[in-house]
This record gives sequence, structure tokens and C-alpha cells, in this order.
Amino acid sequence: MKVLVLHGPNLDRLGKRQPHIYGHQTLADIEENLRRRGEELGLEVESRQSNAESQLIDWAHEAADQHWPVIINPGGLTHTSVALRDALVELNDEGNHGFVEVHLSNIHAREEFRHHSYLSPIARGVIAGLGAHGYVLALEYVAAQVESAAAAGN
Amino acid sequence: MKVLVLHGPNLDRLGKRQPHIYGHQTLADIEENLRRRGEELGLEVESRQSNAESQLIDWAHEAADQHWPVIINPGGLTHTSVALRDALVELNDEGNHGFVEVHLSNIHAREEFRHHSYLSPIARGVIAGLGAHGYVLALEYVAAQVESAAAAGN
Amino acid sequence: MKVLVLHGPNLDRLGKRQPHIYGHQTLADIEENLRRRGEELGLEVESRQSNAESQLIDWAHEAADQHWPVIINPGGLTHTSVALRDALVELNDEGNHGFVEVHLSNIHAREEFRHHSYLSPIARGVIAGLGAHGYVLALEYVAAQVESAAAAGN
Amino acid sequence: MKVLVLHGPNLDRLGKRQPHIYGHQTLADIEENLRRRGEELGLEVESRQSNAESQLIDWAHEAADQHWPVIINPGGLTHTSVALRDALVELNDEGNHGFVEVHLSNIHAREEFRHHSYLSPIARGVIAGLGAHGYVLALEYVAAQVESAAAAGN
Amino acid sequence: MKVLVLHGPNLDRLGKRQPHIYGHQTLADIEENLRRRGEELGLEVESRQSNAESQLIDWAHEAADQHWPVIINPGGLTHTSVALRDALVELNDEGNHGFVEVHLSNIHAREEFRHHSYLSPIARGVIAGLGAHGYVLALEYVAAQVESAAAAGN
Amino acid sequence: MKVLVLHGPNLDRLGKRQPHIYGHQTLADIEENLRRRGEELGLEVESRQSNAESQLIDWAHEAADQHWPVIINPGGLTHTSVALRDALVELNDEGNHGFVEVHLSNIHAREEFRHHSYLSPIARGVIAGLGAHGYVLALEYVAAQVESAAAAGN
Amino acid sequence: MKVLVLHGPNLDRLGKRQPHIYGHQTLADIEENLRRRGEELGLEVESRQSNAESQLIDWAHEAADQHWPVIINPGGLTHTSVALRDALVELNDEGNHGFVEVHLSNIHAREEFRHHSYLSPIARGVIAGLGAHGYVLALEYVAAQVESAAAAGN
Amino acid sequence: MKVLVLHGPNLDRLGKRQPHIYGHQTLADIEENLRRRGEELGLEVESRQSNAESQLIDWAHEAADQHWPVIINPGGLTHTSVALRDALVELNDEGNHGFVEVHLSNIHAREEFRHHSYLSPIARGVIAGLGAHGYVLALEYVAAQVESAAAAGN
Amino acid sequence: MKVLVLHGPNLDRLGKRQPHIYGHQTLADIEENLRRRGEELGLEVESRQSNAESQLIDWAHEAADQHWPVIINPGGLTHTSVALRDALVELNDEGNHGFVEVHLSNIHAREEFRHHSYLSPIARGVIAGLGAHGYVLALEYVAAQVESAAAAGN
Amino acid sequence: MKVLVLHGPNLDRLGKRQPHIYGHQTLADIEENLRRRGEELGLEVESRQSNAESQLIDWAHEAADQHWPVIINPGGLTHTSVALRDALVELNDEGNHGFVEVHLSNIHAREEFRHHSYLSPIARGVIAGLGAHGYVLALEYVAAQVESAAAAGN
Amino acid sequence: MKVLVLHGPNLDRLGKRQPHIYGHQTLADIEENLRRRGEELGLEVESRQSNAESQLIDWAHEAADQHWPVIINPGGLTHTSVALRDALVELNDEGNHGFVEVHLSNIHAREEFRHHSYLSPIARGVIAGLGAHGYVLALEYVAAQVESAAAAGN
Amino acid sequence: MKVLVLHGPNLDRLGKRQPHIYGHQTLADIEENLRRRGEELGLEVESRQSNAESQLIDWAHEAADQHWPVIINPGGLTHTSVALRDALVELNDEGNHGFVEVHLSNIHAREEFRHHSYLSPIARGVIAGLGAHGYVLALEYVAAQVESAAAAGN
Repeated sequence: MKVLVLHGPNLDRLGKRQPHIYGHQTLADIEENLRRRGEELGLEVESRQSNAESQLIDWAHEAADQHWPVIINPGGLTHTSVALRDALVELNDEGNHGFVEVHLSNIHAREEFRHHSYLSPIARGVIAGLGAHGYVLALEYVAAQVESAAAAGN
Repeated sequence: MKVLVLHGPNLDRLGKRQPHIYGHQTLADIEENLRRRGEELGLEVESRQSNAESQLIDWAHEAADQHWPVIINPGGLTHTSVALRDALVELNDEGNHGFVEVHLSNIHAREEFRHHSYLSPIARGVIAGLGAHGYVLALEYVAAQVESAAAAGN
Repeated sequence: MKVLVLHGPNLDRLGKRQPHIYGHQTLADIEENLRRRGEELGLEVESRQSNAESQLIDWAHEAADQHWPVIINPGGLTHTSVALRDALVELNDEGNHGFVEVHLSNIHAREEFRHHSYLSPIARGVIAGLGAHGYVLALEYVAAQVESAAAAGN
Repeated sequence: MKVLVLHGPNLDRLGKRQPHIYGHQTLADIEENLRRRGEELGLEVESRQSNAESQLIDWAHEAADQHWPVIINPGGLTHTSVALRDALVELNDEGNHGFVEVHLSNIHAREEFRHHSYLSPIARGVIAGLGAHGYVLALEYVAAQVESAAAAGN
Repeated sequence: MKVLVLHGPNLDRLGKRQPHIYGHQTLADIEENLRRRGEELGLEVESRQSNAESQLIDWAHEAADQHWPVIINPGGLTHTSVALRDALVELNDEGNHGFVEVHLSNIHAREEFRHHSYLSPIARGVIAGLGAHGYVLALEYVAAQVESAAAAGN
Repeated sequence: MKVLVLHGPNLDRLGKRQPHIYGHQTLADIEENLRRRGEELGLEVESRQSNAESQLIDWAHEAADQHWPVIINPGGLTHTSVALRDALVELNDEGNHGFVEVHLSNIHAREEFRHHSYLSPIARGVIAGLGAHGYVLALEYVAAQVESAAAAGN
Repeated sequence: MKVLVLHGPNLDRLGKRQPHIYGHQTLADIEENLRRRGEELGLEVESRQSNAESQLIDWAHEAADQHWPVIINPGGLTHTSVALRDALVELNDEGNHGFVEVHLSNIHAREEFRHHSYLSPIARGVIAGLGAHGYVLALEYVAAQVESAAAAGN
Repeated sequence: MKVLVLHGPNLDRLGKRQPHIYGHQTLADIEENLRRRGEELGLEVESRQSNAESQLIDWAHEAADQHWPVIINPGGLTHTSVALRDALVELNDEGNHGFVEVHLSNIHAREEFRHHSYLSPIARGVIAGLGAHGYVLALEYVAAQVESAAAAGN
Repeated sequence: MKVLVLHGPNLDRLGKRQPHIYGHQTLADIEENLRRRGEELGLEVESRQSNAESQLIDWAHEAADQHWPVIINPGGLTHTSVALRDALVELNDEGNHGFVEVHLSNIHAREEFRHHSYLSPIARGVIAGLGAHGYVLALEYVAAQVESAAAAGN
Repeated sequence: MKVLVLHGPNLDRLGKRQPHIYGHQTLADIEENLRRRGEELGLEVESRQSNAESQLIDWAHEAADQHWPVIINPGGLTHTSVALRDALVELNDEGNHGFVEVHLSNIHAREEFRHHSYLSPIARGVIAGLGAHGYVLALEYVAAQVESAAAAGN
Repeated sequence: MKVLVLHGPNLDRLGKRQPHIYGHQTLADIEENLRRRGEELGLEVESRQSNAESQLIDWAHEAADQHWPVIINPGGLTHTSVALRDALVELNDEGNHGFVEVHLSNIHAREEFRHHSYLSPIARGVIAGLGAHGYVLALEYVAAQVESAAAAGN
Repeated sequence: MKVLVLHGPNLDRLGKRQPHIYGHQTLADIEENLRRRGEELGLEVESRQSNAESQLIDWAHEAADQHWPVIINPGGLTHTSVALRDALVELNDEGNHGFVEVHLSNIHAREEFRHHSYLSPIARGVIAGLGAHGYVLALEYVAAQVESAAAAGN
């Protein structure tokens, strides 16, 4: 099964900008790491990044049509995009696997406007502040979910 | 006269996502329906959909230049986009015909954040909760406005 | 089938007060217009106006008992009356047809306190800012609903 | 001694509307029940219902003049009527017996706007959520108050 | 010229309720006093009181039709009635004389919810806290306005 | 059947502190009174008091396990304890009898921060401001509920 | 008896600035008018103006020491000065005559920040929106108060 | 190295209360699971549960003194306890390993008051909504942190 | 006379945690210092610390019964505990000496949620930000109060 | 070393106004008392009072230039003056001694608007509600600070 | 033409206080710099500074009378002075040249209370955060405005 | 050195839309003007406009990589885009030159929602309301910064 990992605006800058907040790993490092961990877990992991809200929406639609579980770090859109929420909510439809929201930094320890997410209320769950490791943990969660769904014959 | 009908983010998913909220008609069904009703009313109806805020802004500019009346369902951008508002406000300039805002679902019966629209204060009017029928009603309003403007020699 | 059109406080003043906001038509003009349009649609349209909240509540109860669809312009009570909401909510009970909320002016373009309606969350839908034409559109929506309900054998 | 039980807007609909919230008893049932319980307690119980704020105000004035204790379920006016509050506050004047506020449903478990009451701060007390039984409990409280006031020679 | 003095809910209780807030004069005393002062100023003063919002609205409509200046103490409706505001705003139409809002008590020294008035923003002016004397002052203001309007040939 | 009556922080001080707010009865008086009234109603009433949130939580768990109806005066924890709410919510599980929230004083007539209760939204109902009599009324309600549940074979 | 009339910041500009809001009379005109009206009422009227908060505070202290009634138009300090409030509150001490707050314009019809006054809650009363006539009305109120206080032998 | 896993109020009820929110596993199941996973990761995992804020505070102090990493599910105290925050903040002192906050349910999808955590701003990170699996993921994060700290010679 | 000094949650950690905020003195140092200063002032000073709200409540009750003046640093409970407030308010009863609230750090210079105290409105006074010296100053205030009360024969 | 004690608006009225809030001592009494206590502590105490914000600002500048510690009771400016804050913040520059904020009354027990101070966040500490004694305590704190700074060779 | 540059409270301290925020230049340096730049632009630049709101108000009045363009850095009064706003608004009267608001620091990057300015809504424009250079830019803007007004024959 | 000038949504409409707010110059006019002024200042000025948030983000990344100073008028995104903020914040990294935020209109004199900017807190400074001249002033500021940085050998 394929798992789609979506990275929102500015995550192409990882390793370049504000390393004291976001760490020194580049996005390519993270993606490769996830791909390898996915292999161990029997999952094909595909990572995509875009700075455009509309692109992320299209990818969410594709995942809904393909029944792929999604892991998403929505970047700054977390706090401002109802349109992205409306796209991701389809992942909760029957036959789909929902999505896990991941943030590299602890958004609760930063500016007030980062404490609210339009996406969290419709996510399966949220992992924040655990750095690039957060993606790996999300992937493990997805693997366990997929496995137990398969076991249940869903 | 041409009437431009704009559909914002996720409306390409109509008939696929959350049918208990948005109904079972696809966007193509709605567009065809509007085209036919337009014909009866003597109006050319052109429908366009985009998930990108910038595309909707460009189309609003085009409508302003062409003096087309606009009917718009802005989707999730309703609640978040000042940029779209700034584009649509030109439709209120002299010689233009303003726009009507349409929502399929009753946004007042949903989450708190859907109760506020950046666009409503500059719209001619708003129709919400009447399903795909809302577009038809908006079109009839536009037809009446165009007719009475023509009668007044504007 | 009868459709009940209710007009709240001050709508008896139409054509007299603030024509730049509410237009030049009198309430009698609007009611006659609706009656005629109703006839074309095969509906008996009865219009009633009152400045008294309690009278509107009684009429709502009557409509609930008679299973009449309701179109209501609640005037200033829109923003202040929980009691009217509690009366109208019965129209959503099984076997009833709900109600459509109509405002002549675009309430979202006026004072802040007009942006909230106690009734909208329990309405089928809302039409605002389209002038007296808004009533006609509401009536057409009701006609379509009644027809499709009849078709479904409800 | 007479006890006046006042029922506000829409309580004439009891047993008709939303029985999952308000129960299946009609207002007549409740009133008869209260009359009988009053008899046991040595109190004349008179129940009145009105959908009009002004009528409830007049009755509150009458109770103040007659020194009757009052039990009131103000319906939707609970949350919106300063005028009713201003009428009821007289019941706290010396020589009067105040009033008890009763709600059939648990208003704290419903919409946010039902959590605030203009009347509670000037009531002797409030009973909410205990259904029609709440009236009986209020009556028992009034009986005990009247008795202990009589014992104290007031 | 006639001046209409309107008294809202509970003002029929003056002299009975809470004399430490509202004073010992009855409404009849105040009305007689105003009538006499009007006579001195060459004005016919007519006072009316109602506990019903709809009655006050009807009287406001009458004053608008008759071009009477209005002095109003809206009682508890001050803080809650948009419908009354919508009726009174007609008094600001050309050819009319607006209205003066009077409160016996200093509403700014009382509960928080009494600090906001829906009527003040559309009143000519507001007099609060000066007891029954406030009506007399409002009448003198109206007399001066009428006189200077007459002098200006309006 | 046993009914558990829980008293929260500071209620051991009844009769000692602020008698103008809480009355002169001691907690022992109240408990004895409830025990006797319970006997009349065929219920075993057990009263417990603690100043510790954790103790009240443990007792709520015990009541859930034993299927005892609960009457609780949570004292100051009313306004601050989510943990107590999370314990009491189990009493709403199937097979349990919920709880009634009682306050001696009228919390709506006191400081703003006492107007909100974390417990009320999950309580069967709330009785406030009726002094120690409030417990008796709650007990009578519980007795009636238990009886009608038994009659229904639940 | 002397009555002190205080004018706050910018009132020295009357007749110069924004005549559509504040009228065409100069402060000297108003003061002369008040002096003459005072003479008729048997009161010595002294008017003072300052743009300095501290000067107004000193004058309030002087009035408190001299037991002079005060009429004050605090200008922009109305909305911002706790220090002026703390000075004026002494005028409510026993043996003093309080103060009346006057505003030329209807502050409730202007910007939101002008709707709150730090002084109103401690004023005898407030007159707003009646132009320069408001000072005269305040003076008449003061005259009546002084007369009735004298009659009562205070 | 020992890792301390703290469970706050009501978590002793896991498997008993509201399984649709919290799942069917008991706390003992979870603890055993964590212990085993810890063993695999080379960590001694000790789980403790208390309904008392003060007990959790004491354990946080102990962890600070012993330099144990902490994983905590604070239950309802999450939203209300500044005291617990003040205890846990020591875990961020130099030489300590901070703490990870875990919630079984997705607190962002529940009541408004559960959206704010006093602890999140001082946590290393937060995992919410991933059920009992969330503890395992937190443990894996801690293992990785400990390992990389050891590698860095800290 | 005995003075009771109460220390709330986490104050047992003084000298250990966050010395840049709370200073380097241990609680034992502070207590010894206060004891000695008390001796000089003729007062027996007894210090107690607890992390449990319920323990602090019990001690407040004891102080009320014994008529001991209280100095309290409530720690994190300052901002969250209504129950502690309800316990301490008894210290304001006649015959008691109230309490002084002390904070080591300047709570107004820290997080927003530390700016509000449930206890301050019922305290005699508050000392914040003066470090351990604040306790000594509070003790001197208490000594002066006790002395002047004794002098007044209270 | 000189300590500058600043008194803001209306403190020249001490002993005259509202003695139930501010006590019976005059400002001269307080100043003499402070001077004497200063002598005992080896400090020259100079007290100044002004009703003018600008004067207090100038004195704050002087203190900054002279490196004098400051004790300030800012009166009503506490809650409204950013300009005074901007002047006092210089006292926190290196080589200066900061300032202590003193209030005679317990501002937390008074009107809501007195609960916020623009100055507290930049003060060393705050003493409120301890009457004129509060100044003495502030002085003792300053003495201790000066001494320990001298001991540290600063 | 003369341009008046006004500096509000604490700007006399430039170069002394908080150089990391306000820079190292003294006010004299800035004024000399502006004078020279004004000369180049054919404008007489006069700079004045005061810590007194009333002085700034008087200068604003003078500028209005003299038709001088104004550049103002209002210091802390920016956020608190309605009186200064009321003085400056005259500069927008016909025949006058308005004013430009300048802040040395970026007020949007500092405390929340500095984000709101009472003056900005009536200013021609605002320059913030560009240090002393901001004054020069404002002067260049004024020069261009004056020139184009002259060109237009105003 | 190159300076990048970015124009956000709808600025391509300059000269077409709402000239009473935005002026009559087209964007091409402004860009040519800036290019020429840049030449005089020894700077290459490149202007780019896009209606797409993602395009502006990409350009911000390019500027960060190229170490270009940026002047940006973000249009409606000013008030809604956290993603753009997250892109621009890199311009504050060491070795970069930050950005200046420019608005043609005075956003503080327009709708409430335009008063807040997500970008201002991380901008060097902000210029608003000075029309197209604002860009020129920003450019002059940048020139001065670049020059002084060069002089400092940065």
C-alpha cells in the first residue's frame, strides 16, 4: 500500500531556514529516511512538497480517490486554510484511512496564531514538536492502522 | 450577455465528497443545468472551477474588464481570502454588475468559522443552504437585474 | 398546497422608510406579486405581517400544525429572538417542510449586530440582499422542494 | 395562599414539539399535576401561559401587587428579555416572595446562547433539566418558604 | 405642535418599584408635569406607555407619519430591541424631528448589560440619570429645536 | 438502592463560614435530614465530604461501578475541574443513573467566574440557590427517576 | 452658589474645528450664554477650559473643597482618564453635589472607542448629543437639585 | 535508563469508561505493552497513575531529581493545572530530558475547553489522537533522544 | 500570637528549580529567616508547605478556627483554585485577620495566565516580585496590624 | 543614597477623599514617616507629588540620570499611561536600581479596569492593599537591595 | 513653507535610553539632520519636543491655524490619547495638509498594546521601524505633497 | 546590488480599480519610476507581481538565496498568509537584509480586518498610506541600509 506524505509551504527550505526551530536535515534527507522506514514496514512511501495550496488540495483529492493514507505537514496553511481542510476531510469517508498531521516544531510553544489548526479537528491525530522523527512515528502509526484494518478484513 | 459562474476549491469533488452535506449532483450536472436555464433566460452561462485562489482572482479581473455579472461559490476561501475580496470588489465599480455569493450548504448551521464571509459585505446578495438550486435562483436574479438595467438604458 | 409568508416588525413600512435600503415597493405590492407567482407554480401563497413577536410565534405554530412551508422575513427579530427560533424549529419536525429566511437588504453589509441571526442555523436556507426578488426566489425553491417531495411520495 | 406559575413562549406546544428535549406531557397535564400537588401542600396553584413578553410582564406586576410567590419558565425570553427581568425584580421587594426559575431541559447542555439567563441573578433559585418534575420541586420549595415565613411571623 | 412621549415596559410601575433607583413619582405625576411644561413652551405633550414592543413600534410609525418629535424612555427594550430601533430610525427621515432617549437612572452606573443601547446611535441625543427631570430637559430641547427649525423656515 | 451524596471543598465548614450566603445549618444537620428523607422515599442515603478533588473522583468511580445515583455539590471545583467532570461523565453510561448538581447559593447572583460550571453540561439537571432544601429536592427527583426506571423494567 | 463648568481638551477650538460635528458656536459664546442663564436661575456660573488633564484635576479638587456643583465636558479624556475620574469622585462625598457629564455630539453615534466613558458611572447623569444646549439643560438640572437640597435643609 | 510514564486522573478507568473515545484496552494492558517495548529499546519503563494533582507533582519532582525522561498523559489536568506545569518545567533544566505529552483521544476534535493545554508550551512535543499507540511512539522518540544524547556525550 | 505561613505547590523545590526566576534560597532558609524575624516582632511564625490543594484548604480552616493571621504563597493554585479562595475567605470574617498574598517572582512580568489571581480580590494585600524578602515584609505588615488591633482593643 | 518616592494624581488628596478606601493619613504624614524610616535605614528619602503625567515623567528621567532607586504610586495613571511606562523603563538599565510600584488600596478588589497596570510588568515588584504601610515596606526592600548591591561591589 | 515636527513623551531621552530599540542618535542630532534635509527640499523644518499631552495639543492647534504640515512621533501617547487625536484631526480640514505619523521602532514587533494607534486612522500615512531615517522619509513625502499641491494651484 | 520589489494579489489592477483608494498610476508606471530612482541610488530594481501566494513564496526564497533586499506590498495576503510570513522570515537570517512592507493606502483607516498584518512583526519597517511614493521611500531606506552595511564591512 502507498502512503502519501505531503509537505506544505516552505518545507522545501528545510535545512536552510531557521535551523534552531526546524533542525538541520533537508527535506530530501527526511524523504529518503521515510522511504526506507516504509520499506521495512511494507509500505511504499511517496513524498511530495508544494508551496501552493491548490496543489496540496489536488493531491488530497488524488489520495481520496486512491484510498491512500496521508501524512501531512501543512506548514503555515495549518492555521489559515479552510480550503485544505475541506479537501482533507474526504479522507475520513468510509473506505479511506484519514490523515495524521505532523509539525516539526512544537507549535504550542510558538506565536499565539500557531496554536490553532483548522486541520487538527478532522485529523486522526497530531504529532508536534518531535522534529523529523515525528514523520517516522506517524508512519509507524499508519502501518499499525493498515495492518489492523487488514486483519479486520476491512 | 455572458454570466460567469465561478466555483472555488473542492467544488470539483461535488457528488464525490460528503453527499449528506453537498448533495449527489456532480459539478458537470450543475453546470449543464445552469447553461440550459441561462438559455431560457437569454443569457450565455459560462462555468469555471479552480482550486487556486490566484486563478479565481484572474477570472474576477476578466469579468470586471468584460462587464460580466458573476455568480460565485467561493468554497473554503469564503472565510479566509481577503485577496479574493479585493478582486471581486471591482465588480461593484460603475458599469459593472456586482456578484451574487452562493453556498450549497447552510453555512450558518455548520462550524462557527463558516459563519463569517469576507465576501458577503461586498456582494449584491447571498444565497445559502438551498443546494444546487441556489445557483439557478442566483441566475434568475441576475437575469432580472440585467433586464431592468437594460430597460433603464444603463 | 398553501405557503405561508411571514413578515416581521416594520415591514408594514416598506416603501415608506429608508427606500435606499429597502426599495420603493410596498408590502402590498410584494404580496400581490408573490400570490401571482404562486399561482403560476400551483401554490396558494398567504402573506401575513405583524410587529408582534408573539403573533409571529402563533403563526409559526399554526404552520407547524397545518404542515405549511414557511418563508419568513423576521425583520429586527432576526438578531434578538430566541422565542421565535423556538417556534420555527418545529417546522423541521418530520412531516413538515422547514422554512426559508429572507432579507431584503444585505445584512452582512450593514451594522455588526445584523450579521448574526438566531434563525439561520435552523433554516433550510437564507436569501439576503436580493430585494423583493428574494421572496420570489424563496417561493420557487419551496415549489421545487414540494414537487420533489411529492414525487418521492412523502 | 396563591402561587402563580408562569409559562413563557412556546410552552403551549409541550407534547407537540421536540419531545426528545421537552418530554411528552402537555402543558395541561403539567398544570393539573401542579394544582393537585399544591392542594396537598395547602397552596392554590394558578398556571398561565403566554407567548407575549408584555403579557408575562403584566402578570409579574399583578403577582407583585398581590404578594404571590411566582414560579416561572420563561422559555426563550430567558436569554433575551431585560424587560421581563425588570418586571420580576419587584418580586424581591420587601413583603414579596421572589420567584423560582424553572427549565424543563438542561440549558447548560444545549446551545451556547442558552447558557446565560437574564433572570437567574435575581431569582431565589434555579432548577434546570429535571423535566416537568422541576415544577413540582419548585412548588415544594415555595411551600417550605411560605411555611417558614409564616412561622417567623412575616 | 404635538410631542409624543413614549414610556416602555415597566414604567407603569414608577413609584411602586425600586424607588431607590427610580424615585417616588408615579408615571401620572410625570405626565401631568410634562403636559404643563409643554403648555408653557407652546407644545401639546401626549404621553403613552406600553409594556409591548409592538405597541411602541406602532406608535413610532404614527409619529413618523404625523411628523411628531418623540421623547422615549424605552425601559428594558433599550438594550435588546433591534425592531424598535428599526421603527424609530424613520424619525430621522427628512421632514421628521428625530427622537431624544431618556433614562431615569444612570444606566452607566448599573449592570454591564445596561451600558449598551441599540437606540442611542440613532437618537438626536441621550439624557440619563437625571430622574424625572430628564424628561423636562428633553422637552425643552425639543421646543428649542422646533423653534429654530420654524425660524429657518423648515 | 443507595444514593451517594457528595460534598466538595469547604462544605465541611457549613454553619461556620459566611452564613449570609450558605445558611446556618451544619453539614451534619443536612446529612441527617437527607438520610431521614431518603428513608421515607425508600432510599439509603450516604453522604461523604472531601476537600480533595482526587477523593471525589474516586467516589465517583465507585458510584459508577456500583450503579448508584449521585447528588453532588462540587463547591469551588464546579468552576475549575475538568478531571471531576471526566469522572462523573461515566455516570451517564448505560446502566447508570447520572447525577444531579446542587448549589446552596444562587451561583448566578455571585461573581462572574461562578456562572460557568464544567459539570452542568453533563448533569441530569441543576438546582441552585434553594439552600439546603435543594438537596432534598434533588433526592426526590432521584427517587422518582429510580421508581419510573424500575417501573419500565430498566 | 457658584457652579463650575469645566471644558476639557480641544474645546477651545469650538467653532473652528469640525463644525458638522460640534456646531458653529465658539466656547466664549457658550460660556456667556451659560452665565446669563445662570443669572436667571440665581447661580453664578464660572467656566474654565484646559487641554491639560492635571489642570482639570486641580479644578475638580477645588470644587470639592468649595462644595461647588460641577458640569464637565471632558473631551477626549472621557474615554481614557482614570486620574480624572479619581478626582471627580470626591464630588460625590457627603456635602458635595456631584457632577453632570455633558457631550456636545452624540458619542454613541461615533467611533466605538467613544462609547465608553470612565466618568459616567460616577456622574449624577449624562447628557449627550444635544449640542451647546446640553450645557444649559445640565445647568437647569443643577439649579433644581440645589433648590430642592436647600428646601430639604441640606 | 528509566523512563517514567505518568497517567493522570481517570486513566485508571481505561477500558471501563467511554470506550468509543478512549478504546477498550485497560491501563494495565498499556503499561505491560510499554514495558515490553521499553525492553526492546533498552529502557526500563515505569508507569504510575494517580487521580491526585499533588501526587503527579511529587513524581515530577522525583523525575527531575533522578534525571528520568517523562511521558505524561495528564488527563483533565491538562487544561487546568498551572501547578503541574510548574512541576514539569524543571524537566527542561539542563541535565534533564524534558517530557512528551500524550493524549489518547484527539483533544482538538472534542470540546472547546480541551483545545488548550497548560503543558504543551513547555513539552518537548505532543502526540494526540493516536490511541494507546501514542505512548509507544512517545517511548520510541525518547529512546532516540536518549541515544543521540549519549552519542553526543551529554 | 501565631502567624501561619503557607507555601503552595512546588515551593518545596526552591533553590532547585529555575533559580533565575525564584532565587537560590531553599524553603528551609526562608522559613528559618521568617521564624527569627517573627521572634524579633513578638510573633510565633509557623511555616507549612504542601503540593495538595486540599491540605492548604484544611490549614486555612485551622487558621480560621484559631484566629491566626495567614501569609500565603499559593504557587500555581493562585491562578486556578476557586476552592482555595473559598477556604481563605473565612479569614475575612469578623474576629479574624485576613491574609496577605505573596509571590516571589513578579507575576505581572511573566505569562499572561499568571496575571490573574483568584485570591487577590479577597486578600488584605499582595506583595509580588520582591523575592524571599516579600515574606518578611508581609510579616512586618501583619505585626503592625496585630499591634494596632490590640491597641484598639479588638 | 537618595530614594525618590513619587506620588501620582490625586494623592495630594489623601486624608480628604474616600477615607474608607485610602485611609485617614495625609500625604505629609506619610512623607514624614518615610523620611524618618529612611534615616534609620541610612537612606535620604525625597517625596514628590504631581497630578501631571509629564511632571512624573521628568522626575523619572532625573532619577535615571542620578541613579536613584524609585518607589512610585502612580495613582490612576497606573492603568492608562504608556508614556510613564516608557519613562520608568530606563530605571531598569544597567547601573540603575529599578522601581517598586505601590498602591494603598487593593486594586484587585476594586473595578475591573484597576486590575491591569502598564507599569507592573517592568517593576521590580508590586505592593498593593497594605495602606501607607506599603511605602515603608517598599523602602525596606530598597534598603536591602542597595545594601546587597553595595556588598557585591556594584 | 514651514513643516512642524513634533516629538512626544520620552523622545528627549533618545541616545540615552534603550539604544538597542531606539538607536544612538540624540534628538538634537535628528533635528539638525532634518533641518538640513529640509533646506535642500526648500522647507523650513521646526522641531519641538514635549512630555506633556497638553503641549502637543496646543502645538497641533497652532499648526492647524498656520496651515503647517505636521510630522509627529507621539511616543507612548500613540496608544492612549484620544485628546491628541482630536487635536490632530483638524489638520485634515480643507486648506490643511494632514500629518504623517512616525515611529522609530517597529511597533508591530513589540508589546501587543503598541499595535494599536489612536492616530493612524486619521493620519495621511504611517512610517514605522525605519529608525531616525523615518523622519527624513516623512519629510520627503511632505515635500512632494506640498509641491504637487502647489502645482495644482491649491 | 539588486533590490527585489514584490507586488501581491490585485496590484496588477492598479490604475483600474478603486482609484479613490489606490490612485491612478498603473503598476508599470510605478515600476519604471522605481527603476529610475534605483539607478540614481546605484541599485538595480527588479519588480515582480503575482496573484499567487506560492509564487511570492518562491520569489522570497530566491531573494533569501541571493541575499537581495526585498520591498513587498503583499496586498490582501498581508492579513491572511502565515505561509508568506514563514517565507519572508528567512530574509532576517544573518547575511540577509530583511524586507520593508509597503501599503499604498492607509490600512489603519480602512476595515478592521486590515489593521492586522502577519508580516509587520518580522519586517524591518512598514510604510502605509503614502501612495506610490511609499515604494520610493522604502527604496531610499534600503539604499541607506546597504550603504551603511557596506561601510561597516558587512
